[in-house]
Amino acid sequence: MGMPKLLLATKNAAKVREYLLPLQGIPYDIVTLSDVGIDVVVRETGETMEENASIKAEAYALASDLTALADDSGLEVDALGGEPGALSARYAGEGVSDRERLDFLLSKLSHVPWEQRAACFRCVIAIATLKGAVELCQGECHGIIAFEPRGEGGFGYDPIFFLPELGKTMAELTIEEKNEISHRGKAARRARQILERYIRSSD
Amino acid sequence: MGMPKLLLATKNAAKVREYLLPLQGIPYDIVTLSDVGIDVVVRETGETMEENASIKAEAYALASDLTALADDSGLEVDALGGEPGALSARYAGEGVSDRERLDFLLSKLSHVPWEQRAACFRCVIAIATLKGAVELCQGECHGIIAFEPRGEGGFGYDPIFFLPELGKTMAELTIEEKNEISHRGKAARRARQILERYIRSSD
Repeated sequence: MGMPKLLLATKNAAKVREYLLPLQGIPYDIVTLSDVGIDVVVRETGETMEENASIKAEAYALASDLTALADDSGLEVDALGGEPGALSARYAGEGVSDRERLDFLLSKLSHVPWEQRAACFRCVIAIATLKGAVELCQGECHGIIAFEPRGEGGFGYDPIFFLPELGKTMAELTIEEKNEISHRGKAARRARQILERYIRSSD
Repeated sequence: MGMPKLLLATKNAAKVREYLLPLQGIPYDIVTLSDVGIDVVVRETGETMEENASIKAEAYALASDLTALADDSGLEVDALGGEPGALSARYAGEGVSDRERLDFLLSKLSHVPWEQRAACFRCVIAIATLKGAVELCQGECHGIIAFEPRGEGGFGYDPIFFLPELGKTMAELTIEEKNEISHRGKAARRARQILERYIRSSD
């Protein structure tokens, strides 16, 4: 019997790349949606990232008959009362580009000075097992919303998420640098511990 | 036999107050310099905070025949290559007021935009025991140098140390709020663990 399979249940290729690094070397055979040829239409109808991540992980575990890891991530901007939050991917409407979403957010903050532009990137990971259990973990990263986009790396709101300690936006980091400090990197390292515990308890 | 005494070896009354909170309830009888009537002139000749904290703790432990806790704290401003650092208290010269020191630092940064004003408050604590051992621990707090002072709490550079996540300067926090997130609060919680270990190992 080989290693158990772990399905990275995301259609976002950039997210897949970000998960491979912190999950490197775990005793699972990591597979993607295209590897298993599954395409489930999941409506992210939850009001929280926790709900959305759970809905996705459960749907994909059920469809694939594999342990599935899904995340829901969002940007919480203090000056917008925590918005866009769970709505991050759809904040400027459906079917718009990353750049249009950035511009929409920047326009909402155009009169907000830097002292009031604090924001938090949050990533909630749900791991759904074949036994029907769902376990959650999360990671956070604090920064400031810049006044204009900078950098080509990452995706989503990364080009306007400024990290004062690094003097760079999230999109100006290498994937290794981003992984070190990002919400997703932190959450993934916790997910790794959960997955390793599953393996130990099933030995 | 009562509890062993711990000397808070600082002449700064605001520092004493900040230490009492995180050290509350430890199995030591906490005493201050005025309690023991000791006044040692310590030259902070070290080039690092670690050296200065050690020099102070050792000098006071020797003079008082008590376990002594001393700290050296500093503000490391990225745009100034880490200055004032260990020189924080003497950065604008000897015998100047907190306000003059603030203004001196602000004038050095007057042309630096907010994106390049990241800074780190660092507190190094040295604990010197009667056996001649010195143990170090530290705490850090990241923030941004504001363009003008704000707030009446704390001391030193607190009024220009802006905490984006809180939307306030360090001087606008209550002592409890400051303790939660400050370099000194973090270092003090580590010092507490060291002190509790001493007690356990001497039982």
